[in-house]
Amino acid sequence: MQPPVELLDFLKREDRYLIATHQNPDGDAIGSAVTLALILESLGKQVVVFDQDPVPEQYRFLAESSRIFTPETVKNAPIALEDCGNLILVDCNDLSRVTKRKDLQARFGYRNALVIDHHGTPTQFGTLRWIEPDAAATGLMILAISDALGVALSPPMASNLYAAIAVDTGNFRFENTSPAVLYSAARLADAGANPTLISRALFESWSSGRLLLFGRFLHTLEMIGPVAVAVVTHQMFAETGTGPDDTETFVEFLKINRDADVAMLMRELEPDHYKLSLRAKGTVDVAAIAELFGGGGHKNAAGCEVRGDISSIKRHIVAEVTLRLNSKK
Amino acid sequence: MQPPVELLDFLKREDRYLIATHQNPDGDAIGSAVTLALILESLGKQVVVFDQDPVPEQYRFLAESSRIFTPETVKNAPIALEDCGNLILVDCNDLSRVTKRKDLQARFGYRNALVIDHHGTPTQFGTLRWIEPDAAATGLMILAISDALGVALSPPMASNLYAAIAVDTGNFRFENTSPAVLYSAARLADAGANPTLISRALFESWSSGRLLLFGRFLHTLEMIGPVAVAVVTHQMFAETGTGPDDTETFVEFLKINRDADVAMLMRELEPDHYKLSLRAKGTVDVAAIAELFGGGGHKNAAGCEVRGDISSIKRHIVAEVTLRLNSKK
Repeated sequence: MQPPVELLDFLKREDRYLIATHQNPDGDAIGSAVTLALILESLGKQVVVFDQDPVPEQYRFLAESSRIFTPETVKNAPIALEDCGNLILVDCNDLSRVTKRKDLQARFGYRNALVIDHHGTPTQFGTLRWIEPDAAATGLMILAISDALGVALSPPMASNLYAAIAVDTGNFRFENTSPAVLYSAARLADAGANPTLISRALFESWSSGRLLLFGRFLHTLEMIGPVAVAVVTHQMFAETGTGPDDTETFVEFLKINRDADVAMLMRELEPDHYKLSLRAKGTVDVAAIAELFGGGGHKNAAGCEVRGDISSIKRHIVAEVTLRLNSKK
Repeated sequence: MQPPVELLDFLKREDRYLIATHQNPDGDAIGSAVTLALILESLGKQVVVFDQDPVPEQYRFLAESSRIFTPETVKNAPIALEDCGNLILVDCNDLSRVTKRKDLQARFGYRNALVIDHHGTPTQFGTLRWIEPDAAATGLMILAISDALGVALSPPMASNLYAAIAVDTGNFRFENTSPAVLYSAARLADAGANPTLISRALFESWSSGRLLLFGRFLHTLEMIGPVAVAVVTHQMFAETGTGPDDTETFVEFLKINRDADVAMLMRELEPDHYKLSLRAKGTVDVAAIAELFGGGGHKNAAGCEVRGDISSIKRHIVAEVTLRLNSKK
C-alpha cells in the first residue's frame, strides 16, 4: 500500500493542519488521527486534532488521546480552527461524518481538504482523496504514510496504530486479518506497542455497569433464522448507569454463534427509533442492507437508523438477510 | 530461538518416531504434535502420533488432527507403538503427563526419548531435552525446528502452528505476546494459515443454545463487593438445551470486570448444592478459599462444591475474599 505522491507532497508542503475524524470516534479514528498529528509534528508542523465528541473512556489510555479537542475545548487549541487552512479527514470521507452542525462546519476554514480513509462509501468531499477500501484499518494507511515520509515510529505512535488495528480487526480475528496486518502489528510491537496492555485496555476493562448492561443485552438475544439479534434500551442504560459508549463490541460478541450469518444490535434512540449495528461473516453484504435505510459501512460491518416498532424492524432485516442468502444458493 | 544441534541430528538420523503429547490435549499440544509429524514425514520418516484422550471437538477442524491415535484406535497405526523405537514428547516433559496407565507406558518401547516443551516443570525424563520456558507456545519451537531443518511450511503445518500459538496466547492477548510471536503468526498466515477461520473455530463457534445460556447466566450477574458472581441452574440448561460442558470459559468472562478481584460461577448441582468455579487476578488466593470447602486448585483458578442456600453461599465467599484482601492492606 503506497500513499499517493500528491498526498505526501501536501503533507510536506504546508505548515498548519487541522485533523478531524468522525463523531463517536473509535480506536481506529483516534489512533490514526493522533498518530498522523505526531508524524506531522515530527516534521515541524503545527497540528490541531478535532472531534465533535469526547474520546470514549476505553480509549483514554492511548498516549496523546487527550490532545483531541472538542467543540467545548477547542478554544484552548494552539491554533484557531479557522486558521489551520488545511483540513485532513481521517477514517471518514465526508464533512457530515465529522459533524452535522453547520456552525462547526463553517469554522473549518480550509483552502485544501485531504481525505484518508478505508471506508468505501462514495462521497465527493475533498480536494485530494486517498481511499483504500481493502485496508483493514485507517491505522495501516497512517503507517504507510510514516514509512513513505521516513518518520521513525515512536512508542506513542506505535501504540496508537496498534490499537487502531486491534480495534478494526477484532484483535486479529476479523476477515481483514491478512499476513500484512500481522506483520504490521509485529513491527508496531517491536517499536514499543504492548499487545497485552493494549488488548486488556481495549477489550477487558469493563466497568461493573457495562458488564451488567451486557447481561441485560444478552438476555434479549433471539435467534431469528440466520440472524442473532439483541437489544439495548434507555431503561437498561438507566438501570446500570451506562450509556451508548458502553455498547461498543457488544454486537461483535453475537458473532460467536456458529449458526448466525448476521449479528444485529438494536439500540433504542427514542421510542420506535433504533440504531442498528450489523455484523456479517462474509455470506451476506450488510452494507447493502444498511444502505436501504440510509446508512452504510463495510460488507461485514455496517449501521443505520430505522424507525418502526421493534418486531417489524426485526422482521424486515431478517427478510433482507434471508433474501440475500437464498439468492446465493 | 535455536533448536540444539543434537536434537536436529536425532530428527535427521532415525527412521521411525512415536510422537506423544499430554492427556486432555489442547491446541498447542495437538498443533505441535501434528506439525512435527508432518515435518518428519516430509523428510521421509515414519511417524505415529499418540494421545491418551481423543481430540476435543473444538480442535477437530485442524488439518490432520484425525491422525492422532488413542489407546482405542492405535491398533490401526501404521507402526505398532512398540516398534517406533524413538519417543518424542511434545508440549509436556514427563511420561506421566502422557498417561498414568502403566500398561500404556510399557508399550512405548523406545531406545531414545526426546522432550520438546515450553513448560518449566522440573522433571528428569528423556535422553535429550529441549525446554524453553520463555517460548509462548511449543508451536513456536516446532516452527524453529522446521526452519532449522529447511522444511518448507505447508498450509496444514502453518494452520496447526498458528492454532497452537493462538490458543497459548489467547489470540495475542496474553503477556507472552511478543513481537516475535506476532512475526511468527504473520509468517504462518503467509504460509497458508487463515487467522479468521482458525480464531473462529477456536473461540467463536458456540451453539445458539450456549449463547442463550450465556445470556441467562450473565443476567444473574451481581457485583458483591470485590466479587463478580453469576449462576447457572438446571432450569437454564433445560430452557436452552445445554449442559454443564457448555459453561466452559463462562467464569473467565466475568474477569472482564475491572473492579472485580474475584469472579465466581455457581452451577446448581441439586437444590441447595452448588459447584463453585473461582477465578482471581492475583490479589486473592482462591485455592485457599476452595480448600475451606474441600476443593482446591491454583492461586488464580480453583473450584469446590458447597451445600446451602444461594445467598448464604454468596455471603460466605464474599466474606472470605474480603478478609484476604483486607489482610493485605
